[in-house]
Amino acid sequence: MYIEKIKSPADIKSLDITQLTIVADETRKAVLNRVSKHGGHVGPNLGFVEATVALHYVFNAPEDKFVFDVSHQCYPHKVLTGRASGFLGNVDDMNAISGYSSPAESPVYDNFEVGHTSTSVSLATGLQKARDIKGTKENIIAIIGDGSLSGGEAFEGLDEASELGTGIIIVVNDNEMSIAENHGGIYKNLRALRESNGQCEHNWFKAWGFDYYYEEEGNNLEKLIAIFKKVKDTTVPTVVHIHTEKGHGFQPAIDEKEQWHWGAPFNVEDGSRPEGEASESYDGLFSDWMLAEMKKDPTLIAVTAGTPTAAGFTKEKRDLAGKQHIDMGIAEEQAVAMISGMAKGGLHPVWTVYSTFIQRTYDQIAQDLCINSNPAVINVTWGGSGTMNDITHICLFDIPMLISIPNLLYLAPTTCEEYFSMMKWAIKQDKMPVAIRVPSNGVNHTNEVQQEEYSFSAQYKIAKHGSKVAIIAAGSFYQKGENVVRLLAEKGIDATLINPRYLSSVDATTLDALQKDHQLVVTLEDGCKDGGFGERIASYYGTTDMKVLVGGIKKDLYDRFDQHQLLSDNRLLDEQIVEDILTIVK
Amino acid sequence: MYIEKIKSPADIKSLDITQLTIVADETRKAVLNRVSKHGGHVGPNLGFVEATVALHYVFNAPEDKFVFDVSHQCYPHKVLTGRASGFLGNVDDMNAISGYSSPAESPVYDNFEVGHTSTSVSLATGLQKARDIKGTKENIIAIIGDGSLSGGEAFEGLDEASELGTGIIIVVNDNEMSIAENHGGIYKNLRALRESNGQCEHNWFKAWGFDYYYEEEGNNLEKLIAIFKKVKDTTVPTVVHIHTEKGHGFQPAIDEKEQWHWGAPFNVEDGSRPEGEASESYDGLFSDWMLAEMKKDPTLIAVTAGTPTAAGFTKEKRDLAGKQHIDMGIAEEQAVAMISGMAKGGLHPVWTVYSTFIQRTYDQIAQDLCINSNPAVINVTWGGSGTMNDITHICLFDIPMLISIPNLLYLAPTTCEEYFSMMKWAIKQDKMPVAIRVPSNGVNHTNEVQQEEYSFSAQYKIAKHGSKVAIIAAGSFYQKGENVVRLLAEKGIDATLINPRYLSSVDATTLDALQKDHQLVVTLEDGCKDGGFGERIASYYGTTDMKVLVGGIKKDLYDRFDQHQLLSDNRLLDEQIVEDILTIVK
Repeated sequence: MYIEKIKSPADIKSLDITQLTIVADETRKAVLNRVSKHGGHVGPNLGFVEATVALHYVFNAPEDKFVFDVSHQCYPHKVLTGRASGFLGNVDDMNAISGYSSPAESPVYDNFEVGHTSTSVSLATGLQKARDIKGTKENIIAIIGDGSLSGGEAFEGLDEASELGTGIIIVVNDNEMSIAENHGGIYKNLRALRESNGQCEHNWFKAWGFDYYYEEEGNNLEKLIAIFKKVKDTTVPTVVHIHTEKGHGFQPAIDEKEQWHWGAPFNVEDGSRPEGEASESYDGLFSDWMLAEMKKDPTLIAVTAGTPTAAGFTKEKRDLAGKQHIDMGIAEEQAVAMISGMAKGGLHPVWTVYSTFIQRTYDQIAQDLCINSNPAVINVTWGGSGTMNDITHICLFDIPMLISIPNLLYLAPTTCEEYFSMMKWAIKQDKMPVAIRVPSNGVNHTNEVQQEEYSFSAQYKIAKHGSKVAIIAAGSFYQKGENVVRLLAEKGIDATLINPRYLSSVDATTLDALQKDHQLVVTLEDGCKDGGFGERIASYYGTTDMKVLVGGIKKDLYDRFDQHQLLSDNRLLDEQIVEDILTIVK
Repeated sequence: MYIEKIKSPADIKSLDITQLTIVADETRKAVLNRVSKHGGHVGPNLGFVEATVALHYVFNAPEDKFVFDVSHQCYPHKVLTGRASGFLGNVDDMNAISGYSSPAESPVYDNFEVGHTSTSVSLATGLQKARDIKGTKENIIAIIGDGSLSGGEAFEGLDEASELGTGIIIVVNDNEMSIAENHGGIYKNLRALRESNGQCEHNWFKAWGFDYYYEEEGNNLEKLIAIFKKVKDTTVPTVVHIHTEKGHGFQPAIDEKEQWHWGAPFNVEDGSRPEGEASESYDGLFSDWMLAEMKKDPTLIAVTAGTPTAAGFTKEKRDLAGKQHIDMGIAEEQAVAMISGMAKGGLHPVWTVYSTFIQRTYDQIAQDLCINSNPAVINVTWGGSGTMNDITHICLFDIPMLISIPNLLYLAPTTCEEYFSMMKWAIKQDKMPVAIRVPSNGVNHTNEVQQEEYSFSAQYKIAKHGSKVAIIAAGSFYQKGENVVRLLAEKGIDATLINPRYLSSVDATTLDALQKDHQLVVTLEDGCKDGGFGERIASYYGTTDMKVLVGGIKKDLYDRFDQHQLLSDNRLLDEQIVEDILTIVK
């Protein structure tokens, strides 16, 4: 086996094409070995094996700089830069290697920590400028998938790369797919370029001032080597457009490209997965509910931005929704501005977005949506400590961000029934934008009758009246609040339990009333506590005698954390909270 | 005079071309009347007079929907839609009409509140989708300047407009200028299109799937009417590219396009302005300091994104800086990713940005920059209550946003000397990104010796030791803190005064020490208090006996506010603060 011995790309320089082909085959097998045992990004990595071998053969990393986009295609690069163990070994070896480009892991070969999309060209222009100022001659190579091209930052990056006018190589890895199918006018041009072997009448890249090269056989090692050799050491902005096959070399991933973009472990023989127990999930419940509502209301529109399954909108459900589902491609800014426009035009759009991606569109939420008071709905999913845990995908920051934006209502339901009653009301009302944080601690049910109307100002709900200590437990941490109240009861404290429901402002009436017979308020939120919901309450009580214990996760960079450990480090385990309460109220 | 009698665009439908030409002339004079007496956007509005008359003549607002971008070209539209008084009357009449597209002002003719750039196409796609779902037939017309085309949201919008595939008309108002000169590869294509009368080989808009029309004489009413008639009721995505002259009809604005983009009142006869007293300003001081430092250090790079004069980089200073200044066009996401790449490559970039625009790039600050720990510097200018006051340009939200992002140091200097010592250190250090909030309350000097090294964790500076009450006064509110301490002394309270210097985290050591002999901590910050710096301190003290009075501005939408009134409403006048302190510590 070659790849076990490859410690750096230098080790493949002396190989001939037959040997390089073996390296590519072994790399593909290694990638498949990892994703089948550990899970990860399948299709995009399989399609980029040959290109990676060719890039490392032609260019000289680390002098020449590779910048990956979103990292969905960086596994083969890891295999060839000293990290094959993460692909060949056992699951522990795999865990030691992240699924993303990471200088923390490989300071020599990985130039940037990358997890969000559309960033590679922009980051590379910085290296380009640095090279030009220093007067050195290295190649700067940005790699970007066709799906990632739909994000605003990618366009801004291309615009600047052309402006700089010096050598940069942008490899457009066109596998005809985003995470799901592509959406956007640019894909008309990519198709025309593919169908004309790069020769069609209007070429977007040439229009923007790039030298342009097309390679139809993007999984053909020899052809890729030839084209990369041609552009090596270019002194002008250059696009190399290669047509690859997503999932190349693994039939199940070729047949079902969307399902095999990312996946949990599977049987590498046939792509089968052990059938999990069928369990309720909010994406499934939401999409079913939406489809039912859509039938009654043609103005109800489900919106996604590149990740339709975040909202449960699988291919089948997208087809059922027809014109009432729209995906933007990976373009969150467009999603927010467009839902504002749709609401202005009389539609009822609901945009579903993962917590980690909402920060890609702060300005549009504040300007296009909230200043305009257009009543669109944002469905924020996976917010909290129990979802994604890669450093680039942390889902702890949506609360501080959204509750700092004026004229946005941010609601935190605690159960399935409360979620849908809030959603129904948010869609029906016509006064302002409303964001709803989908619970991320599993689907909890309640028999309690839900209200149909909600106030536009915060009205906390007192679930249980007690005294001395009040627990204000928001959203996904509400059940934790219930546990704490139960444990406190065992210690002789009859605590009050409050479901605040509103994150975006405080309920002064309820807070004032607590002062009569409470000494301590404990706030619990499943997110970053710096700038969060609890601090508003601490500030509100700042000049009173009420003590406030703010429970949340400390602002910091976290990578591949264990949820239990994270909660423990932040004194958020049920027993720790009780312990801390008891040191304050004796 | 025609325009005095025009109450709605219907009133111009029956006019002939001679009369329409008079309307255009009167409109131009009205615009000049306003900007010369009231100040405002000069050049872009003057260049768009004929196009606006033609648009309103050909299309039928309000059924047909106009969506303006950034609002720099919406004055003629206001003149023709019942708001001529804001252009003809006295300054009070002018104050009653805002400088921006505003449904609050004209629910019928203005579709969106707009002040930030690159949003029109995205917003319009929402109206387009709404029309298509409802099955109506109105024209949707998005207007966008060439300068605004450089922002990511504009590209995302164009991409989606093409994807939708139905009728939308995008008027590209190409005056060959952004606020300053344009930067980016797209301008190579716009130039080629202008020079070929729209016929050049590679047409970006055609490549993306648009029908495309070019009109070279963008200030010729007849030709504009003809081309708009041609595209009216189109059923496909259509770009109308018109070549206009920025400042058309007013020679000073034609001669000096950058200086006349926006301006304070002037003498309409010759464009002269009364000479103001020469006074120090941070933009001038910063750019001079940078130019001097750049000579010593070729790796020091001044970066701007469309607003070079925010950093004091006038045309002359840009020329002096040469390759050590770079402007991105209006592309803040690109700016942040690129400074991260530059810092990674060994340069020392300093990006200057107005507080109101920093929210255009949250994700890039968090991902591209902070997770990567690249030591670039962000120079945040005009943050606070004393700068811009239009609803879209409020500068109160940079603190909540930036201090919620992990691994970013946010410093708040209080004097000129402290600012430059912090800047010098931020540029020199190589550990992490640092943002600095330029004071916005004038240039205050101090004789105090400044330190050369700063800690990476918060170290507050105790300016005066007292007891009972401690005032922690950040940045632009530091001098307010000094005033409060002085007033308290008159009341017999010897208060402690602290310059916190760090906004991004609390100095636990200093806060702990205050507990010995203080009852009350008062925090003062010139920004939104919800999610701000003071709430962190309130939260820190939450379970102690220390009382905390958080001083800042309540989260809300504010439009054209008076600073004194705003401070008063938020109990932030010096005497009000003292009054509130005295009700707490008796």
